[in-house]
Amino acid sequence: MTTQDDFTVTPHSVDGDVDYDQLLDQFGADEVTPDQCGRFPGPGHPLVRRGVFYAHRDLDRFLDAATAGGDHALVTGVGPSGPMHIGHVFPFYFAKYLQETAGTTVYIPFSDDEKYLTKDQSLDEIGRHTLDNLRDILAVGFDPERTRLIVDSADADVVYPLASALSNELTQATVDATYGEPENVGLSFYPAVQATHLLLPQLVEGRQPTLVPIGADQDPHVRVCRDVAGKERYDIEKPSALLSKFLPSLDGPGKMSASDDAPNILLTDDRETIREKILTYAYSGGQSSVADHREQGGDPEVDISFLLLYYFFEDDDEEVERLAREYREGSLLSGELKEIAAEKIANFFEGHQQRRDQLGSLGEELEPYRLTEAERRRALGAVGYPDDALVRQQR
Amino acid sequence: MTTQDDFTVTPHSVDGDVDYDQLLDQFGADEVTPDQCGRFPGPGHPLVRRGVFYAHRDLDRFLDAATAGGDHALVTGVGPSGPMHIGHVFPFYFAKYLQETAGTTVYIPFSDDEKYLTKDQSLDEIGRHTLDNLRDILAVGFDPERTRLIVDSADADVVYPLASALSNELTQATVDATYGEPENVGLSFYPAVQATHLLLPQLVEGRQPTLVPIGADQDPHVRVCRDVAGKERYDIEKPSALLSKFLPSLDGPGKMSASDDAPNILLTDDRETIREKILTYAYSGGQSSVADHREQGGDPEVDISFLLLYYFFEDDDEEVERLAREYREGSLLSGELKEIAAEKIANFFEGHQQRRDQLGSLGEELEPYRLTEAERRRALGAVGYPDDALVRQQR
Repeated sequence: MTTQDDFTVTPHSVDGDVDYDQLLDQFGADEVTPDQCGRFPGPGHPLVRRGVFYAHRDLDRFLDAATAGGDHALVTGVGPSGPMHIGHVFPFYFAKYLQETAGTTVYIPFSDDEKYLTKDQSLDEIGRHTLDNLRDILAVGFDPERTRLIVDSADADVVYPLASALSNELTQATVDATYGEPENVGLSFYPAVQATHLLLPQLVEGRQPTLVPIGADQDPHVRVCRDVAGKERYDIEKPSALLSKFLPSLDGPGKMSASDDAPNILLTDDRETIREKILTYAYSGGQSSVADHREQGGDPEVDISFLLLYYFFEDDDEEVERLAREYREGSLLSGELKEIAAEKIANFFEGHQQRRDQLGSLGEELEPYRLTEAERRRALGAVGYPDDALVRQQR
Repeated sequence: MTTQDDFTVTPHSVDGDVDYDQLLDQFGADEVTPDQCGRFPGPGHPLVRRGVFYAHRDLDRFLDAATAGGDHALVTGVGPSGPMHIGHVFPFYFAKYLQETAGTTVYIPFSDDEKYLTKDQSLDEIGRHTLDNLRDILAVGFDPERTRLIVDSADADVVYPLASALSNELTQATVDATYGEPENVGLSFYPAVQATHLLLPQLVEGRQPTLVPIGADQDPHVRVCRDVAGKERYDIEKPSALLSKFLPSLDGPGKMSASDDAPNILLTDDRETIREKILTYAYSGGQSSVADHREQGGDPEVDISFLLLYYFFEDDDEEVERLAREYREGSLLSGELKEIAAEKIANFFEGHQQRRDQLGSLGEELEPYRLTEAERRRALGAVGYPDDALVRQQR
């Protein structure tokens, strides 16, 4: 058991060997129970079934609505500071899974404003990543009737007035206590923008359970938003959080992020590149020689190739168990396991890339996923703006 | 001479009997010289000639451009938290005067966002004040070719992305040092919005001297913006400031504001109401009896009726001098001076009200004063946003 000093989890850094139980105590979130696990719609997603999403806040309200056919939504965001990679597959395809199995409304905000304020990149670079990331999100194949993509700078006509209204409920002291003293006044304000993201489905579509699947390190964002919602100035409820363990990067424990130095499998990588990255970089739980491995067996729990299959890319429980067993026994070699993982991942990526290649112009493809003028007005009205049709800048 | 402890000037409060020279030392601004006074375009505006605008930062660059026919702009804002009153006449008609005599480009931002964050008013109330104040600004009769009205919430599509970019140049520590710890994160961010207001003419129209005529108490806003501009990330120059003394409220010294308890002459008041307010409330520099007044004379320098004529409503220097002389001598009675002031003010207000009454629908009237789509794109491009025509929410 690690002690408190061995790891730090704040929204800006995740270090060390994280103790998830301790994190849970620290944040005051609840563990996902087997019962809750079983109540997720459909046959159950590996990320839930296999415990990547291990903790939550107010999950029951979301599950009640999702299983009873009631209105419910999910928010999962994009920070457009680089090309999308394998770590992004999980939340977005999880969202798509829920949409397909339970009709979940999915909102995907792009925080290009925050990226400019935290990353050493120009607005031009971030703008290009935004366009590129948008194509990847469109390639996931969400239902445009139930999905909205929002870009903070491009949809500022609605994002800023909402965030400005919500910012009245959020003191600088709360932000300082949660994140430390912000570097600039844009970051001071950003938590109000983030609260806007998480409340937007309710502001547009009406009060409803809203799930935010998010890395456990990002929990403070949800808590700040829940504080705002809890002031009950508006007809909204606190968003629910579904907290995940940190997905491993190829070279071992740590958080997978577009900005890490570790090589990442990009959503645009072809089959051969994926295979090469896995064979070269994927941290192995096997032994250093084939003879040793045959004799002592490997440890699937730290083997990145196995974990990728386990978390997401191998849905079949029996197959996953077989791989783990044979790996432990030593009959499945590290190189063989890597080949299996590489193939499964490449198959999945090929589907994504085919859908991406079939997209037309971004403007046209994006259009059905944007907030309509009526939706924008509803959201502005929900926080108290008058319907000043004469004045507001419209499409 | 008052000591430092006798008065406080911050952007949020003006108290006591202000020593303007000391304020000048404290802020580090320069006194407006007779030479600068004489270089203002046209016959000279009373507010300049008679020293209401008494201090400045970088005034010469503005005057050089204004007299040489070069590009130059002026920014003066509206905080829409109540009906407009006599105090608003000064900056807006001063701006119109400069536009008529020197072709000045005038930008008028409406800070409805800030008003919601500082006043105990709903978004609905502030929205109604905004619509009402817009009509008053339109009634001033600016040239739509050279004038832009911007409403923070309604033009958030351009205001927020600009403010977000500028916020990268502005630390929370600077804001705290200037304003104290903000009450909420909206107010933490607002200085970046204000900087956007003051830099907007340059971001839209290109680098040019920009004058900000402003109460001396609002000087910190300009200094914060000058800091941002001084970082030279963009092709803009620091805005110039023209600092005014505080205009007296009817019942004597203090700052005239829509939210004061003192009665105010509203821009919608009719002739009889104006006369009544002046006769009843205007602080008099005269003696308490006619006999005493005839014998001892009055003091025009503290007489509100005289000051209103002197500052703005009586352009004729000889007439103003005659009134002051006769008032001091006692031949002009307090009541007579009040009648003169009431008539002059009512005449001026009638012109304004006639123009206001002749306005058509606000949407149509406002349209030629709004930033065009091309202007919005130019401003966004000026701070580094790519021309992402495919994505940005357009009109």
